[in-house]
Amino acid sequence: MSVQEEGEKRWEEMSNDNNNGGAGHPIDWAATAWTHLSTLRQRAPLIQCITNFVSMDLMANTLLAAGASPAMIHSLEEIPDFTPCTDALCINIGTLTPSWLPAMKAAAEAANRSQRPWVLDPVAIGASGFRMRACLDLLGLRPTVIRGNASEIIALSGYSIGPTKGADSVHKSTDAVEAAQSLARASGSIIAVSGAVDIITDGKRVVGAGNGVPLMQKITATGCSVTALVAAFVAVDPEHAFEATASALSIFGVSGEIGMDVAKGPASLRTNLIDTLHGLDQETVLKRVNIYNFP
Amino acid sequence: MSVQEEGEKRWEEMSNDNNNGGAGHPIDWAATAWTHLSTLRQRAPLIQCITNFVSMDLMANTLLAAGASPAMIHSLEEIPDFTPCTDALCINIGTLTPSWLPAMKAAAEAANRSQRPWVLDPVAIGASGFRMRACLDLLGLRPTVIRGNASEIIALSGYSIGPTKGADSVHKSTDAVEAAQSLARASGSIIAVSGAVDIITDGKRVVGAGNGVPLMQKITATGCSVTALVAAFVAVDPEHAFEATASALSIFGVSGEIGMDVAKGPASLRTNLIDTLHGLDQETVLKRVNIYNFP
Amino acid sequence: MSVQEEGEKRWEEMSNDNNNGGAGHPIDWAATAWTHLSTLRQRAPLIQCITNFVSMDLMANTLLAAGASPAMIHSLEEIPDFTPCTDALCINIGTLTPSWLPAMKAAAEAANRSQRPWVLDPVAIGASGFRMRACLDLLGLRPTVIRGNASEIIALSGYSIGPTKGADSVHKSTDAVEAAQSLARASGSIIAVSGAVDIITDGKRVVGAGNGVPLMQKITATGCSVTALVAAFVAVDPEHAFEATASALSIFGVSGEIGMDVAKGPASLRTNLIDTLHGLDQETVLKRVNIYNFP
Repeated sequence: MSVQEEGEKRWEEMSNDNNNGGAGHPIDWAATAWTHLSTLRQRAPLIQCITNFVSMDLMANTLLAAGASPAMIHSLEEIPDFTPCTDALCINIGTLTPSWLPAMKAAAEAANRSQRPWVLDPVAIGASGFRMRACLDLLGLRPTVIRGNASEIIALSGYSIGPTKGADSVHKSTDAVEAAQSLARASGSIIAVSGAVDIITDGKRVVGAGNGVPLMQKITATGCSVTALVAAFVAVDPEHAFEATASALSIFGVSGEIGMDVAKGPASLRTNLIDTLHGLDQETVLKRVNIYNFP
Repeated sequence: MSVQEEGEKRWEEMSNDNNNGGAGHPIDWAATAWTHLSTLRQRAPLIQCITNFVSMDLMANTLLAAGASPAMIHSLEEIPDFTPCTDALCINIGTLTPSWLPAMKAAAEAANRSQRPWVLDPVAIGASGFRMRACLDLLGLRPTVIRGNASEIIALSGYSIGPTKGADSVHKSTDAVEAAQSLARASGSIIAVSGAVDIITDGKRVVGAGNGVPLMQKITATGCSVTALVAAFVAVDPEHAFEATASALSIFGVSGEIGMDVAKGPASLRTNLIDTLHGLDQETVLKRVNIYNFP
Repeated sequence: MSVQEEGEKRWEEMSNDNNNGGAGHPIDWAATAWTHLSTLRQRAPLIQCITNFVSMDLMANTLLAAGASPAMIHSLEEIPDFTPCTDALCINIGTLTPSWLPAMKAAAEAANRSQRPWVLDPVAIGASGFRMRACLDLLGLRPTVIRGNASEIIALSGYSIGPTKGADSVHKSTDAVEAAQSLARASGSIIAVSGAVDIITDGKRVVGAGNGVPLMQKITATGCSVTALVAAFVAVDPEHAFEATASALSIFGVSGEIGMDVAKGPASLRTNLIDTLHGLDQETVLKRVNIYNFP
């Protein structure tokens, strides 16, 4: 049986689990994550990123290392031609200005029309009313997944801007579980909260992904990059966005853990993380992936 | 006594020195630099950067490695909400276009109103009249510190554009001492000139910082990044912007020196520099910092 | 005899070869590539880059490592002052929006008026009609060299947009030889097609450059960066743009080959490539450069 067939079989089983309300046998998360990664490498999905200036380099390199094909194309003029050719879309408001917003909305709408998944990263949403309003506009276009840190998810869930540390969180991810569930139910999106433990929820189910190392927070754009990776994983399994999101967060965390073994600081960790992501093999994934029902 | 208390005591002593016209005992620069760095790590100041596209990645990573929290937020709409929440502002004109200038001015004004320090990097100011006029506008908003290379400081001091090497200097830093002093007196800003020896002056006092290695000039955005580091150091000691500026330049240089020990070229030096900055300990700082009265 | 004099002597010989229709003794490509690189290091040409957001960092670092002086200046207001001071111009449409196009055109026109070479990188040209029209406008301003991957050169040669993989190629470089020759004859530009074998043609002559490693395609902006390197090489030998282009592609490939020796993945390859480019010596260049008449 090919990896592809294995993956389809597993996903069919997962669908059945879902159909019977999740009462079936538990998901083998490590095997699922490996299926997602190996399928991604086979299909090389084309991921359009409309993202901030800080993260473009690491985001593109993360997607390439994982086996996807990144395209940083954000011109409004190009969206009708280009977005329907892509496999998923990633929108990130990190360095948002008003002139970028129409292209983000048009791309999200085009993705919806083409039935392509799209993922939203509400970077530093608590920093200003402008940023909050932009995110609420985008939220109305029904992102498949929203990935943020705890402060971002709490702010978005409560529509509240306030004391901010810019793009850095002042909350723990585990403090954001209720806000994440509430936001998931209100928006219909999968919500992922990055942190020491990553939290993923569809409003009903909640899983934690316990991979990663603290030093990853000292590398700019790791959050943005894992959001792009979520887009790539969901691109190859759009029917199981919840599972694909958890897989992506865990795989990125595993890459950080292994990268940490020989890192001397945040810059060498960044290098090692990308190298590791590119070379990850099945044995390592099966051994390391740590996704579990939360709490 | 905590590091914090030590720092406050030392700064109080420095203030006393200043009050008696600098006639007191000489500054222990190495201890001062360590106090600045350790205080920065404790307080994790939020630094807003309105900067060029080339430097955003390295600048953010430099701030994170030092212990600060970077925020690359440049939208005019966000400045009223966001800038008053920050601890310092860094403005850099490296890839300036007219549409960015209003946000730079508004942010500088907001920083002034909130009594936050702000730092200007006049990248490649000699390259065009447009760039010179923009810098003179910003100069009118009284930056706390201006950091440039020798050609940039000479051009800004003389309001002259001319034969240019883009962002690279065609002068030695030591050729710019008079221009720096003159600019400091005219503007009221601390002036820092990067080079083989970094020059820092408030118009009266002049110190040299002799740390760093020549290969750092072969890494793009090291100049921009050290300017951001100056903003972070001044954020934790705004009453002593002169001392904090010298500390930042020296600490960055020390990181480059140690990074050079195992570098094989400019790209590995960049990695090592950031790793080193993140891990710098007191013993190393006290041994390596080389700041002295100039000449 | 100095390297400079050697270089001038060699180029004079090459000119003579050209004058007699290339019927003279064959070009010693390895020696030519070394002459180009060593001359570049001596002259440190100033290269203006109007490029995409993803590539600015690696492009600037590539130019610095090779010995050139990069300037990422794209404001329309600055072009009259700045572009005539540069030695070459690199235009790249990777993240093009309509607001950037006037500066690209003005810079290309200024380069032409100042008799400076300029190089075009038609990134992802097949992705949209907007991108194709922009490229055709730029093509009308007679770039000295156009460097793309096979899909880009085929699309530009046929004026056709279509099934796209964003910035990644879906064709082999060797499939694009006819398109490249046709485009070279129609445009008067040197055409370079990157791939497993790089193809360089002036419409009549065709050479292959067989350096490089496949993993370089998993690093974002390597294509953009080699285009900038072409601009720097052509800047120091504008009379032999064909030869300088082949030299640049080969030297970049050699850096990748040597960098690969100790790489553990795409991120460490990127670091090693830049380190190697900075340190390349004559012996290595003479031994490794692999340029030959194609097929």
